[in-house]
Amino acid sequence: MSDLPVRVQINEEGPREGFQIEPGPIPTESKIALIDALSETGLNKIQVASFVNPKRVPGWADADEVVARFNRREGVRYDVLWLNERGFKRALVHEGLSLRGSISTTTSEAFMRNNTNRGFEENERVQRNQIALYQAHGMKVERLSVMTAFGCNFEGDIGPEKVVSAVESMLRIADDCGESIDVISLADSMGWATPYAVKRGVGAVRERWPDHTIGLHLHDTRGQGVANAYAGMEMGVERFDASVAGLGGCPFAKLKGAAGNVCTEDLVFMCEEMGIETGIDLDALIECAQLAESVVGHPLPGSIMHAGSLSEVRSRIH
Amino acid sequence: MSDLPVRVQINEEGPREGFQIEPGPIPTESKIALIDALSETGLNKIQVASFVNPKRVPGWADADEVVARFNRREGVRYDVLWLNERGFKRALVHEGLSLRGSISTTTSEAFMRNNTNRGFEENERVQRNQIALYQAHGMKVERLSVMTAFGCNFEGDIGPEKVVSAVESMLRIADDCGESIDVISLADSMGWATPYAVKRGVGAVRERWPDHTIGLHLHDTRGQGVANAYAGMEMGVERFDASVAGLGGCPFAKLKGAAGNVCTEDLVFMCEEMGIETGIDLDALIECAQLAESVVGHPLPGSIMHAGSLSEVRSRIH
Repeated sequence: MSDLPVRVQINEEGPREGFQIEPGPIPTESKIALIDALSETGLNKIQVASFVNPKRVPGWADADEVVARFNRREGVRYDVLWLNERGFKRALVHEGLSLRGSISTTTSEAFMRNNTNRGFEENERVQRNQIALYQAHGMKVERLSVMTAFGCNFEGDIGPEKVVSAVESMLRIADDCGESIDVISLADSMGWATPYAVKRGVGAVRERWPDHTIGLHLHDTRGQGVANAYAGMEMGVERFDASVAGLGGCPFAKLKGAAGNVCTEDLVFMCEEMGIETGIDLDALIECAQLAESVVGHPLPGSIMHAGSLSEVRSRIH
Repeated sequence: MSDLPVRVQINEEGPREGFQIEPGPIPTESKIALIDALSETGLNKIQVASFVNPKRVPGWADADEVVARFNRREGVRYDVLWLNERGFKRALVHEGLSLRGSISTTTSEAFMRNNTNRGFEENERVQRNQIALYQAHGMKVERLSVMTAFGCNFEGDIGPEKVVSAVESMLRIADDCGESIDVISLADSMGWATPYAVKRGVGAVRERWPDHTIGLHLHDTRGQGVANAYAGMEMGVERFDASVAGLGGCPFAKLKGAAGNVCTEDLVFMCEEMGIETGIDLDALIECAQLAESVVGHPLPGSIMHAGSLSEVRSRIH
């Protein structure tokens, strides 16, 4: 158990992941209220919106308005998602965002073709252009992300060798462009991972690139999110994406593969109870989760938000 | 990872745990239909009902009828719960049950007083009488169970030394009565456990009694059930209680501490994907979970039952 980290970095992605998938229109004010509440919890990184095509993602048609109007809190880095130059340029307009250069690939060419109509070769070209775009705006490229790192609905099981190969290709093009990437993020995009698969995948990457920071983006599609995060921590992973209340999917609809990230407050609970610092006020976060549930108007998958944390129970005893 | 077991034993407790807590009356026929469906999944142990006071647990007022009428399948052991001599004698009337002698205690005298109005000393007397009752009916005492093994809403955090002390007291009275108990079951009755706490608790018991079988009864109150089971497996635990669909609690009502056991099919998924045999047909179990949801008439917390297993996805690919 000595490999468990002393502290973990949790990146909140609930607003971006959640509002892109909710069927009903969510009022702009409600999105802003949730972001503002999250800013008060001790979270230091929040992904607040998605600058994507509003025809494809109507839930983020109001991204510009949300991003213009939420309250920037000192000490919190606010991030947004974009998928192409157009989205990136929309993000650049806004003040007080902490934009970071990132490139991405998948382990599965079948998924890549299905998702973006590209093959690996074409994706390398696109990612090189992405780096050039960041460089033209004076931004470093800090992170590479590997989607479907543990399995893929189009290609099936994914072994660690495919993850290593995907990381290799992205590090190579970064190096070609004079960038040195620190963070390698492995995403269980379709909810295939189990703790053992996480250990194998992370182990293979850590063995090959011992000095890089590894991050995990774990979807809780099949109820393994918290267990997978724990397995990651046992391998020394200190950086996790998560969604408040488990926002980002609707487990009560048959949206296969669409479930959200691991629930932030359930993950924070595990960490804090095990003596791993998160810097996050769990009870404040639980209130955000309850706010998220009232905003979307249906039950969300988080557990602690319904059961309550232990701090109140302990305070009644002592 | 070499400590992960090759095979685990999963005891299904969904019918008993679920129907005792559901607010609405569930038709007897529906209870029987679920039990019969569970019998076809490869589960080899199912706890089917609770012989308790129908005034206190109206959901099991029809226990005798359910137990009289479900279909006994060869190779499956059917178990029931009782809390006193009266309940035990009701169970004895029925054929085809696999009744096992069990004694129990808690780590927390405060909880015991609240729950049963007994202290530790009085409980020892009650458990000795229980053993005498089993012996009078020619039954061995196979199992001891320690409730609140990881924390208690009345007493707070529970360290491993209290677990060891509780196990000691039960083994001592069993020994006094000429019984040699094999299974030590540790229950996270109120959802306090995290993976690290499971490792500490199981580790302390395993170190002291290396030849006993350790079982875990993990409530998923705070979303840690699957992670806690994984941590148990890493410590070599091969025996788990679980509830199909996560039956046994309603996470969408504020029934604090009332959430159900870890969800059987989510646990089976994790095991099978990691190469740990369960003997259970996951897809058949998912159908049972869906049946359970339609029987209770509201969403249940299981994940796989909503997202689907990977076997169908794999079969589409290959």
